[in-house]
Amino acid sequence: MKTRVLGLQILSRQLFCISQLQLSFSGEKFNLVRVLQLNFSSSSILRNKLPQIKWGSKKLKVAKIAKLRNIAMTDPAIEAQLTPLRQAVKEQGDLVRQLKADGAADIDLQRAVAELKHRKKALEDKELALSPKDDFDRMKLEDLLKQKFFYDQSFAIYGGINGLYDFGPMGCAMKSNLLQAWRKHFVLEEQMLEVDTAMLTPEPVLKASGHVDRFQDYMVKDLKNGECFRADHLIEATLEKLLEDKKTSDEKKEEIRALLPLIDGMSKDDMAETLKKYNMKSPITGNDLTEPIDFNLMFATSIGPTGQIKGFLRPETAQGIFVNFKRLLEFNQGKLPFAAAQIGNSFRNEISPRAGLIRVREFTMAEIEHFCDPSMKDHAKFANVADTDMLLYSACNQMDGKPPELVKIGEAVKSKLVANETLGYFMARIQMFMVKMGVDPKRLRFRQHLSNEMAHYACDCWDAECKTSYGWVECVGCADRSCYDLNQHTKATGKGPLGKIFRQNAKPITEHLSNLSAEDVNILEQSLNDNGSADVVVNGQTFSITKDMVQIKRFQKTVHVEEFVPSVIEPSFVLPLSSNPDFVSLVQDLSSALTRVDISHKVDTSSGSIGRRYARTDQIAIPYGITVDFDSLKEPQTATLRERESMKQIRAPISELPGIVKDLSDGRRTWENVLASYPIFEQQESTK
Amino acid sequence: MKTRVLGLQILSRQLFCISQLQLSFSGEKFNLVRVLQLNFSSSSILRNKLPQIKWGSKKLKVAKIAKLRNIAMTDPAIEAQLTPLRQAVKEQGDLVRQLKADGAADIDLQRAVAELKHRKKALEDKELALSPKDDFDRMKLEDLLKQKFFYDQSFAIYGGINGLYDFGPMGCAMKSNLLQAWRKHFVLEEQMLEVDTAMLTPEPVLKASGHVDRFQDYMVKDLKNGECFRADHLIEATLEKLLEDKKTSDEKKEEIRALLPLIDGMSKDDMAETLKKYNMKSPITGNDLTEPIDFNLMFATSIGPTGQIKGFLRPETAQGIFVNFKRLLEFNQGKLPFAAAQIGNSFRNEISPRAGLIRVREFTMAEIEHFCDPSMKDHAKFANVADTDMLLYSACNQMDGKPPELVKIGEAVKSKLVANETLGYFMARIQMFMVKMGVDPKRLRFRQHLSNEMAHYACDCWDAECKTSYGWVECVGCADRSCYDLNQHTKATGKGPLGKIFRQNAKPITEHLSNLSAEDVNILEQSLNDNGSADVVVNGQTFSITKDMVQIKRFQKTVHVEEFVPSVIEPSFVLPLSSNPDFVSLVQDLSSALTRVDISHKVDTSSGSIGRRYARTDQIAIPYGITVDFDSLKEPQTATLRERESMKQIRAPISELPGIVKDLSDGRRTWENVLASYPIFEQQESTK
Repeated sequence: MKTRVLGLQILSRQLFCISQLQLSFSGEKFNLVRVLQLNFSSSSILRNKLPQIKWGSKKLKVAKIAKLRNIAMTDPAIEAQLTPLRQAVKEQGDLVRQLKADGAADIDLQRAVAELKHRKKALEDKELALSPKDDFDRMKLEDLLKQKFFYDQSFAIYGGINGLYDFGPMGCAMKSNLLQAWRKHFVLEEQMLEVDTAMLTPEPVLKASGHVDRFQDYMVKDLKNGECFRADHLIEATLEKLLEDKKTSDEKKEEIRALLPLIDGMSKDDMAETLKKYNMKSPITGNDLTEPIDFNLMFATSIGPTGQIKGFLRPETAQGIFVNFKRLLEFNQGKLPFAAAQIGNSFRNEISPRAGLIRVREFTMAEIEHFCDPSMKDHAKFANVADTDMLLYSACNQMDGKPPELVKIGEAVKSKLVANETLGYFMARIQMFMVKMGVDPKRLRFRQHLSNEMAHYACDCWDAECKTSYGWVECVGCADRSCYDLNQHTKATGKGPLGKIFRQNAKPITEHLSNLSAEDVNILEQSLNDNGSADVVVNGQTFSITKDMVQIKRFQKTVHVEEFVPSVIEPSFVLPLSSNPDFVSLVQDLSSALTRVDISHKVDTSSGSIGRRYARTDQIAIPYGITVDFDSLKEPQTATLRERESMKQIRAPISELPGIVKDLSDGRRTWENVLASYPIFEQQESTK
Repeated sequence: MKTRVLGLQILSRQLFCISQLQLSFSGEKFNLVRVLQLNFSSSSILRNKLPQIKWGSKKLKVAKIAKLRNIAMTDPAIEAQLTPLRQAVKEQGDLVRQLKADGAADIDLQRAVAELKHRKKALEDKELALSPKDDFDRMKLEDLLKQKFFYDQSFAIYGGINGLYDFGPMGCAMKSNLLQAWRKHFVLEEQMLEVDTAMLTPEPVLKASGHVDRFQDYMVKDLKNGECFRADHLIEATLEKLLEDKKTSDEKKEEIRALLPLIDGMSKDDMAETLKKYNMKSPITGNDLTEPIDFNLMFATSIGPTGQIKGFLRPETAQGIFVNFKRLLEFNQGKLPFAAAQIGNSFRNEISPRAGLIRVREFTMAEIEHFCDPSMKDHAKFANVADTDMLLYSACNQMDGKPPELVKIGEAVKSKLVANETLGYFMARIQMFMVKMGVDPKRLRFRQHLSNEMAHYACDCWDAECKTSYGWVECVGCADRSCYDLNQHTKATGKGPLGKIFRQNAKPITEHLSNLSAEDVNILEQSLNDNGSADVVVNGQTFSITKDMVQIKRFQKTVHVEEFVPSVIEPSFVLPLSSNPDFVSLVQDLSSALTRVDISHKVDTSSGSIGRRYARTDQIAIPYGITVDFDSLKEPQTATLRERESMKQIRAPISELPGIVKDLSDGRRTWENVLASYPIFEQQESTK
């Protein structure tokens, strides 16, 4: 069996090291905060052996990625099995298009879309079932990660709380590195404006953003013990059980089959009716259930002592950027485009958190809002990324039952498959970041939202999805969000930027401008360009709008990139040492020298053979180990430096070792170069 | 007038630069997250002039600090005015000691301690009033910081919420740098185990830690409009008003004077009685008030959909470390000592947040818990810090009305003024960090808690206090916390480490051991050392405790260092540029080159004379500026590099500039060295 190891690029927690690192899990995608992809070999743990390294991200060239993908995509045996399912999707997709073209009734369209999703799911399930298997055991990976305290359930000594996790030293360092890498890749590269805003959020802000009214699921409660279920999940599970029940009549089964694809689109009343009609009970106790209840997914609290300021923990970090838009624009000297970024925690009170770290109640997000003039969505650096090959799963292909296609982002923008250069630029940058962080490019795709899948605020959206043991999971959302959020806030507060000039009239003017159709805006724009100003009539009064003022209106369009924090890797360098007391001061000096060059490291004074100690550090992917032995006490003092991936060692003067490790970490020097410059140390690991 | 500027050391947000930076605020201490100290000159803003730099932290040697302090402390004119107040404190301090020695009734002791505090406050107020004045205007500093979007009130467009603040790009970078510096100074240097734990915390955890029962203030509400007041503040204000009222009889005034010092120690019933006796009303509306109400300062919410899991937002990060103690100990291969660290947000629902950023409802904390064997509180690195001069304000001196004293930490530990080496080591390290971050050593002291001031969990505690425009403010707490927190969690869960051996008897045994007096523990220890085991009798049964088991008990002692995040500084380097379009590609290349070496920077294409643009960047303490001019287009291409502090410029090849700035930022090169190596550029700033 071949084990495969993903290359994970790391940055030292201590700011300095950028280092390639191989993690000894293979075959699995996995998420530490929202979604991450690590490969994992259960066998390497079972046999307590080091996996053979086959390739790492540093060897992956873009051209190679494309090749790997094409191989995965064009296996004729697999395609043959998928063809009927693709066909079924296409038929339904065509039906949906026809209904849309005919202006069919909403209920019919909804029903057709639900069936389309159902067929898409069947196709995707089959694709997953046919994809090559690793001998991956998710439980074993999770056990190892918990054992090494990458993360574990929060408050376990109090019984634990679902959906809350603590990061231990390993996970914490990984997270810290990942966030630093994210800052470097996005914030520094694009000179974004970073903000850090309050998590406690008063109700009106989230009312304006739509979260108070629409960020919810329906749930039902066990009438006796109060246990809660997501209504849609419960209905689906009950119906599928009925479908398998021999006592259910054929007529009934037919009815259920027709009903199943409609669950996604059900209103509260539809759900109540269905629950009643099938006399559904709690699947656990058999007790009666309540009617469906609106359950908002935000954590509520009250701010201040009076109990009168209702607040929530923010469900996303974006609102903190939007409410600061005007300050940020001023900070940027009134100029567009600019991007604002925020890294911070958000909170969602999931009804029943599942899927390990993928759906949790408290999580770190890294979010970017790029503000630009909506008529100027070209991007100055787009040319730099135009040749990037990307696996795009367009809405059109999804409706036709076709697979994703490998397209250069430049071509995708040219053909209008991707709406504009700015959106395309960020999609390419996201892909670069994810591959740099160790995501297997074969398991990465960008999926376009079907129009009816949009979040309430999105106008156009592509999700970067990773293929995990849970199937394809969204890990980054990238949306051309247009003006929704900013308009909402402006409307709610009445403090539009026109306020300075028009004072009490600013609010009706702003509303008037906000409600202009795209065409009206074009007319306004024309007049401004030709005459420098334009008249608008609001409440019978005429106001002269100048170019400067309406420039502000243009600002209220955004491209939104939402980054769920993937994952991270421990940057420590271990020094496995013979524990002889003669070495203490030598090791202390070496440790201080490493600290001075900001190399995060740990002195390993544990017992066990050197081979076993290497195996332990290899397992958690520590890239370099220094071993001090009795020869180290002789002049000139030397020690061995071992690299995890090659398992080779060199012998070098102790005074030079910190510099060597630092250069390796920063990428200024390769291990091959080090191997060529110092004598190889050949001592057998297992016999020492 | 001389303006003074504190040196703030910065680290680049992009991981690489460690650079000295002068901030152009002088004369004031100030806090961005909890407490920070910046100096500020209102005149520099009023006159829109650059302040003259007098000294920065890099020029401050420890010896000099001591000198400055001694000068401040021994001014005979000031001392003469303070003498009677010192005497008054000492009299009362002696009385308290006497009462304690005599075993006086609690109520008498309480009354005496309250009066002692009252006299201490009078002394401190006088000291502050007599200390040298800066022409500092806090409002102006805050206005500038808001104008430059270091920070501003959260949700201002919705009216704002008291006690919540957003950090803009400047503040955010400062915060990020500060946290990185903190990681480097503490976590890396001591090889601490960093964790990142959930903010949402279920009730039982905070019940066990004592927060549910004791983390509260009393408040009263206006019966008609529901407005809330802190009961103690309201009583004090009302009584002081009565004292100034001419209509109040002398007899009444005498009574009030006797009552005032007792407010701090009042129970809920005492407060209710006082409110009734003086017929107190709302100071704003004159309406009647409720009885005092317990108001817990934690934000409550419920976790999960049932509403049955009551939870809070954590009020401190320490509990997240304690509940993971066992995992961390395992991670450290069962060895002591080790330290765990956490940086994260905490939340306190202050009744009436005031004092700008000093008392806020949501804030970042950086916290360390150092776990050690309580009988082994020596610290291996203590010798490195033993000579550190520290300004210690002992409980004894406070009771004697004496000022703080400058003591070497080594002597303080030797004389038992500071309990042990571990505590002393961290106090010295904290001072080093704060001075490195730019805190004026003259305005920094360590104050020992009087025993009755202890938090409910602390055993011994020193606060690092900074002198700000709000008076002396605690910004770091450093406590020998002993076993309280861990014991509490062990008791609450019954999952002590003895569980593996004694199973159902583990809980009563653990409780028995937890409740042993210090003497009983010594006896137990003696027996273990002599015999390897000791018998304990619990509920009539005898259990043999071996050395290994009680080792675990020893682990449950901690030294606690609590770091409130001070502040931060923007690492950006500005490139003020002539906006001539010929320069665009030149500037883009230069910007890319700076990005490659991880120099955070901003291209300034704004209008205004070059002098005005420098003034603007100087104001927000941007250390270096590169200016491209028409000579830059000629071969060899050169540009000017200007340093903020000296306001001097050199002219150097553009290709060399990124390297120069990087070396300056990393401290590999001084500005003096750069000045000596390149031709000075003499062009007048104001006339360009």
